Amino acid sequence: MLTAARSLEEKLVAARTASRALATASTAEKDAGLLAIARAVEGGASRILPANELDLANGRENGLSVGLQDRLRLDEARLAGLATAVRDIVALPDPVGGVVRGSNLPNGLKLSQVRVPFGVVGAIYEARPNVTIDIAALGLKSGNAVVLRGGSAAENTNRVLVELLQEALASTGLPADAVQTIDEFGRTGAAELMQARGFVDVLIPRGSAQLIEAVVSESTVPVIETGAGIVHMFLDQGADEQMAVDLALNAKVHRPSVCNALETLLVDARDAERLLPPVLAAMREQGVTIHADDRARAIFADSVPATDEDFATEHMSLDLSVAVVDDLDAALEHIRRFSTHHTESIVTNDIARAERFLAEADSAVVMVNASTRFTDGGEFGFGAEVGISTQKLHARGPMGLPELTSTKWIVRGAGQVRG
Amino acid sequence: MLTAARSLEEKLVAARTASRALATASTAEKDAGLLAIARAVEGGASRILPANELDLANGRENGLSVGLQDRLRLDEARLAGLATAVRDIVALPDPVGGVVRGSNLPNGLKLSQVRVPFGVVGAIYEARPNVTIDIAALGLKSGNAVVLRGGSAAENTNRVLVELLQEALASTGLPADAVQTIDEFGRTGAAELMQARGFVDVLIPRGSAQLIEAVVSESTVPVIETGAGIVHMFLDQGADEQMAVDLALNAKVHRPSVCNALETLLVDARDAERLLPPVLAAMREQGVTIHADDRARAIFADSVPATDEDFATEHMSLDLSVAVVDDLDAALEHIRRFSTHHTESIVTNDIARAERFLAEADSAVVMVNASTRFTDGGEFGFGAEVGISTQKLHARGPMGLPELTSTKWIVRGAGQVRG
Repeated sequence: MLTAARSLEEKLVAARTASRALATASTAEKDAGLLAIARAVEGGASRILPANELDLANGRENGLSVGLQDRLRLDEARLAGLATAVRDIVALPDPVGGVVRGSNLPNGLKLSQVRVPFGVVGAIYEARPNVTIDIAALGLKSGNAVVLRGGSAAENTNRVLVELLQEALASTGLPADAVQTIDEFGRTGAAELMQARGFVDVLIPRGSAQLIEAVVSESTVPVIETGAGIVHMFLDQGADEQMAVDLALNAKVHRPSVCNALETLLVDARDAERLLPPVLAAMREQGVTIHADDRARAIFADSVPATDEDFATEHMSLDLSVAVVDDLDAALEHIRRFSTHHTESIVTNDIARAERFLAEADSAVVMVNASTRFTDGGEFGFGAEVGISTQKLHARGPMGLPELTSTKWIVRGAGQVRG
Repeated sequence: MLTAARSLEEKLVAARTASRALATASTAEKDAGLLAIARAVEGGASRILPANELDLANGRENGLSVGLQDRLRLDEARLAGLATAVRDIVALPDPVGGVVRGSNLPNGLKLSQVRVPFGVVGAIYEARPNVTIDIAALGLKSGNAVVLRGGSAAENTNRVLVELLQEALASTGLPADAVQTIDEFGRTGAAELMQARGFVDVLIPRGSAQLIEAVVSESTVPVIETGAGIVHMFLDQGADEQMAVDLALNAKVHRPSVCNALETLLVDARDAERLLPPVLAAMREQGVTIHADDRARAIFADSVPATDEDFATEHMSLDLSVAVVDDLDAALEHIRRFSTHHTESIVTNDIARAERFLAEADSAVVMVNASTRFTDGGEFGFGAEVGISTQKLHARGPMGLPELTSTKWIVRGAGQVRG
């Protein structure tokens, strides 16, 4: 119980101090720490699961939703999965020290921009103990100390997980203080974390849209926003029917509860009668409820009327909003109005309209003839995903380990002065 | 007077709409706009200078400091200089469309990450009409609309400059709304700009430390912090005497009023008696006031006692704080305590200590054997400088045109679905 009697500020100072050791730790040292973490998670069931049972019992008592209870639950299989994910991070390249660019200046100065850890990364999330391991492991590999606020629903689980993480770090000679939980300080602690400029370099909220909005609004520490996905697919005039069915169906039903799942299907009016019936019939076969605007309902009656509220909602369920639009311009206008700037895809055979869509749809990921489900750090080849950024600053789209780093400019001279 | 009767929200909406046209404008179209701006600034003296006179008269009446009056003043020569700076931006490469990275995924998807404009860039600054032209021109080249809050002291000058900018844009077929001023809404307008999420993609404050602190604290729009420079140089044991004199002197006196000028000189105690007298004598010859700690004063009496306040102050004048430290560790500790994370330099012949300093000094730019005055976008070869970021998110150190862009992921498929 390293952390028993510490104040929040003491914990932040300790994290900052630990971050300095991590910043200069070698890849081998960090990887040894990760392997120790994997072993601790795998072998820690006897300590982790009783704490998790306690949180689950509290959750049932406090009316935690079934979905959140499922996210909160850990078991042997899930612990093994977490350990595997940590080992996967060992195999990834260390972003720290990577040279982004460089040059020799005319006066002989040697200039290079190299990746360095942020320092201390804060994370605010809800009822997902897997995030505790995930962020700690990604933070360690990228040389960052982490300060975690995991929410009261998982407080007992997270406390045990952080103890295990700290023990694992210490066992390999890394500073235990590189992982801190501030759950014991409750909402006050979260509020202080958001104002901890100088102690915390960047804050990553993970969870509901409300949580993210609250962090963005209240925080004076820079925030990386990982947002919701009201994801659109536009079936262009002349789109291939089979491709439209395959892509829309995959985007909607492959995993409806995640942020890259399709929420709204738009179709060009001139081909709506050709494309909508097969696409929506396939959706209905998979149990999808169709929320259709008037023009779409006129073509496909097995649907319920769509409201603006539908088009503005990330259902994360087997619900699909459908609208018929006049043309590409109208599709782009609809996307501008309702998009959360996550992922948009066009299904088309027309090269000019494809290029216009890619240029004008203002989202983190824009696609031609591909399922929106591909917006994913793993699919992009990053190996691990910190989240999917829907903001424009620092990182946009799937974030891998390099997105957990900053850079520093290094200037090597031999006595040069400015004339 | 395109903007006479518009509300703040109408202006922000107009900027957002204009940003869409700018985002897809060709480099040639944007460069034509820049050349029109250069001509308008050059030929606009008869409209600009009377408005500037009015602001200067108000400033004198309201007790504006002599320094700020000088920053506020425009004349024919300064207008010509501004026009030249705009023409220099024409010659720079357009960052938009640049491919940052890309790959073909195993399933045949073609992935590329390309630079795109932020969209709408907000700027909050004080009494510097040159920033109005500067930010508008940098914004245009990088495809961004700009919303400017230039402060009441320069309100009349900025109003005329923005009119000229809008006329110049319109004359080449670009949207006049791509440049907006919100000065007429006063402090309320600035406060609303800081909360204009969804309208403004990034906010850049330029000015005093207080201004920047206020923007960082109040803003819910992401902010790029361009901060103050409490810049350190450490004279290591065994440093070359002549190099120490040359580098410290250049860093301090070449242009004392800018952020990359030296504020604090640290020296290893074991060589303080050898190095301090020649370095500080050269400083005194140039009129520098030496604020020395006790150990430095014991060696160099022609000085005043330094306080912690001195070490925490960006003088921006011919004042230098000096401290004798036990060793490199003590130097790094002093830097950690007082640095604003801008630039630090070590003068040394020892390769191990050089590498430690570069690795452990946690600032935007770290140097070996070079004058801190080289922390500058122009010196780094960027051609133009948006500012020097002292934060770790998005951009760190001198920012050029690419730092005014975000990225977007483009995925080109042929019907791929996720299995």
